[in-house]
Amino acid sequence: MIGAVALLETLTRAGVDVTFGNPGTSEMHFVAALDSVPGMRGVLALDEGVVTGAADGYGRMAGTPAATLLHLGPGLGNGLANLHNARRARTPIVNVVGDHALTHKALDAPLESDIDALAETVSVWTRRTLEPEAVGIDTADAVAAAMWPPGGVATLILPADVSWGEGGVVGPDAALFGPSVVGPKAVEHVAGLLRSGGRCGLLVGGGALRGEAPAFLHRISEATGAKVFGETFSSRTERGAGRPEFERINYRGPTALEQLSGLDHLVLVEAKSPVAFFGYPEQDGSLVPEGTSVHQLAPIGADSDTVLAALAEELGAPEVPVPSDAVDRTHPDGALDVVSFARAVAATMPDDAIVSDEATTSGIFLGHETQNCPPHDWMMLTGGAIGQGMPLATGAAVACPDRPVLNVQADGSAMYTIQSLWTQAREDLNVTTVLLNNQSYAVLNLELQAVGAVADGTKALSMLDLRRPDLDFVSISQGMGVPAVRVDTADGLSRELERAYAEPGPHLIEAMIPSIVK
Amino acid sequence: MIGAVALLETLTRAGVDVTFGNPGTSEMHFVAALDSVPGMRGVLALDEGVVTGAADGYGRMAGTPAATLLHLGPGLGNGLANLHNARRARTPIVNVVGDHALTHKALDAPLESDIDALAETVSVWTRRTLEPEAVGIDTADAVAAAMWPPGGVATLILPADVSWGEGGVVGPDAALFGPSVVGPKAVEHVAGLLRSGGRCGLLVGGGALRGEAPAFLHRISEATGAKVFGETFSSRTERGAGRPEFERINYRGPTALEQLSGLDHLVLVEAKSPVAFFGYPEQDGSLVPEGTSVHQLAPIGADSDTVLAALAEELGAPEVPVPSDAVDRTHPDGALDVVSFARAVAATMPDDAIVSDEATTSGIFLGHETQNCPPHDWMMLTGGAIGQGMPLATGAAVACPDRPVLNVQADGSAMYTIQSLWTQAREDLNVTTVLLNNQSYAVLNLELQAVGAVADGTKALSMLDLRRPDLDFVSISQGMGVPAVRVDTADGLSRELERAYAEPGPHLIEAMIPSIVK
Repeated sequence: MIGAVALLETLTRAGVDVTFGNPGTSEMHFVAALDSVPGMRGVLALDEGVVTGAADGYGRMAGTPAATLLHLGPGLGNGLANLHNARRARTPIVNVVGDHALTHKALDAPLESDIDALAETVSVWTRRTLEPEAVGIDTADAVAAAMWPPGGVATLILPADVSWGEGGVVGPDAALFGPSVVGPKAVEHVAGLLRSGGRCGLLVGGGALRGEAPAFLHRISEATGAKVFGETFSSRTERGAGRPEFERINYRGPTALEQLSGLDHLVLVEAKSPVAFFGYPEQDGSLVPEGTSVHQLAPIGADSDTVLAALAEELGAPEVPVPSDAVDRTHPDGALDVVSFARAVAATMPDDAIVSDEATTSGIFLGHETQNCPPHDWMMLTGGAIGQGMPLATGAAVACPDRPVLNVQADGSAMYTIQSLWTQAREDLNVTTVLLNNQSYAVLNLELQAVGAVADGTKALSMLDLRRPDLDFVSISQGMGVPAVRVDTADGLSRELERAYAEPGPHLIEAMIPSIVK
Repeated sequence: MIGAVALLETLTRAGVDVTFGNPGTSEMHFVAALDSVPGMRGVLALDEGVVTGAADGYGRMAGTPAATLLHLGPGLGNGLANLHNARRARTPIVNVVGDHALTHKALDAPLESDIDALAETVSVWTRRTLEPEAVGIDTADAVAAAMWPPGGVATLILPADVSWGEGGVVGPDAALFGPSVVGPKAVEHVAGLLRSGGRCGLLVGGGALRGEAPAFLHRISEATGAKVFGETFSSRTERGAGRPEFERINYRGPTALEQLSGLDHLVLVEAKSPVAFFGYPEQDGSLVPEGTSVHQLAPIGADSDTVLAALAEELGAPEVPVPSDAVDRTHPDGALDVVSFARAVAATMPDDAIVSDEATTSGIFLGHETQNCPPHDWMMLTGGAIGQGMPLATGAAVACPDRPVLNVQADGSAMYTIQSLWTQAREDLNVTTVLLNNQSYAVLNLELQAVGAVADGTKALSMLDLRRPDLDFVSISQGMGVPAVRVDTADGLSRELERAYAEPGPHLIEAMIPSIVK
């Protein structure tokens, strides 16, 4: 058995049965092995940013890793931005990077580069396999490392001659660990705070925004008056009718400080102490108000369900129903703007949807309008590296073929990984993309103001606009095999959304929407 | 003066007056400063692979660096593949990467990552500027480092608060060094070899494929019978009618070994000792035949013109005209294939053209057919990281606005940086792209055979094909603002090429061409 076959056999044995790839010469034996390991599915993407972002979307939804297949340092480089986002989302990914044959490394051939240095910037675990005999155990270790709570990118660097060499052995089962258990002291300490009469808030992130944790948080909040906040950008939140909705910490530092002002205690549940996204002149980076003390109940990757259950019990917090209004299913009228867009999404949201949200400035009303929609999953941009929304939707649709995926997607961000559309068409994925064309990097116009940069001239502002020429996303989408239409009314968007959800396969709706920035 | 203004003032003072950028929040003061430093031109790209590849194309043609503007680690990550190619081309680039404010670094905000580690994999010089007062001197040093022969990527990491902070001082003139001088001993040694009666070859690369060096090489070859070979992938070769054409070392190792077989001596002129592009089972990585001794005349970055002039004089090699046949300007007939495509390019090549060649397998006859075309520059993919041709053409057109740029571009490679088209339209660049649509990663089908990977199944082969769905490059191009047509005959291609050269601004011609791989 050659190394490549041992790799694929070990992966599929560990339940890793999808590889998103963009291979080259050094990966050809991995590619050929796809035919001898029937359990592994290969999904081709035209750019590695799509590969890694799709693996992120897959891992967020499946809870188990997909593999990637990348071509040496440059292939890894192209995929780094979305691996960075995956690192921040703590998504399990087995990141396979092919390399030159070991016998070829010393020759400094044109594609030689420092793969290890690149990999270590995004990985929780990096290993170079040095002989076919080691492929199985290294692969099992990679799966275990990716799944080690809370999850992460495990990079396996696979030299070509290890891949083609005989002597491969299928690895053992991956040694999987569960989330760490939090001891009773932390629960008692936080219960004491919540009972103390001081004003308390809980800041919740990661795995505590899904599963059983939110219901316990709701009970705790109702019983104690503590306010629950969600982290600004979550990897995946389970929300919608019947589920508690937590106010998210605002992206803007000053607004976030207002949200948290007056708290005596801030308790962290799988969240980090809040910090501003960027530094700005004359602003503090920490978002903890003066006089607020920070406490950790459950570190990231802990068993939040159990610790929150214990806290609810300790507090004697009874089960309470989550109030939910009916969502308005009437199509909104009139021109498209950020409000009517959000209402159109809410009016048409299908059951059990998955939302990949990279709407940026156009999405400011989405959370509010959709909170009473049928239960759904909501995925966000976790690491700030734009160009994630479309790959994320692609991978989520591979992981959950029976669920509708909605990608609300800003135009500027879309253009980093627009190649995702081709993979969506190729794999016939049920992804509906609303491409929000406001002809601008609108967020950067806001940021230009926020950092106090003076730009009254045309050169600076032209670096932030996306006109000259106008991007025609209908044309681009059709060129990559995804049917597309353009709308500029709220009713038109609603009707096209309903049509797209009803038809199998991917669709793109280009929504012409004014920028929120004047 | 804030740091950002000091940076731009120092750059323009050093003659660096174009910045290719894709900025974010941490770069907003650089962007705003564009309006206070009128000498600097900002060119926006939708993806950092376009930014860095365009800076490479600019630097190859101008001989002096452009600046880039990238957004933290993820922006650098997206640009790494083409920085890798630039590293291999030894192109001068001042690579400016914005970072969090120094006061924000410790907070591990979402976009925090190890920029330094990424930068060092592609840079000859990396520095983080720590205060506004140091921006000027650091910028001057960066320009000097980029220009240090033979040239390279100099990365300047600019924290946001250094950029916005007061106290900036314009830097001194960059301390530029000329190419190193080769002493008389190397010349005498090589002259001795060439006179010895042994069979000699010269392998030539880098700067020795342009300027005065090729004519001296031709004289030396004519006088001594030594054969001159060009490196496989050159950064820029000056060629065409009246210029000597040197046989390139083949990309395939076994063919290259045949080309070099029988040589007693191989003399390197700004080239490395030849190695195979990839390692393959049962093949040597070194391409130096047994019994051939290797000698270095001029290291990479040396003053080849002078050393070759001295060698020609030492050998008493007289000036000899370069024979040149007339190029056939008749439009080729019939269907489009790799031969008629090359003939159409040759028949229509305008004066003083710049060719960005990422035609890969479809380009195998291009070199032969175009060697008698009017003098032109030919740029190739130097580092093997595909997705370079379109950005390279973009940057070359910015550097040389009065020259026609032809980009012969394979389809699979195009899709990594197809966003280049938008920048070409925005800047109204005279780039004509022939998009060779063979619906396949044809080179990988060859590689699959070359590495001996067995793939008789459909899953492996489907990872190498670009159908399902077919890419429609006319539609994609129009969607990004570049007019486009599709052709499937040689005459059609010739006519469209002539039309594109005659009209200002960018054009794309999608050439439907069968793959050379069955």
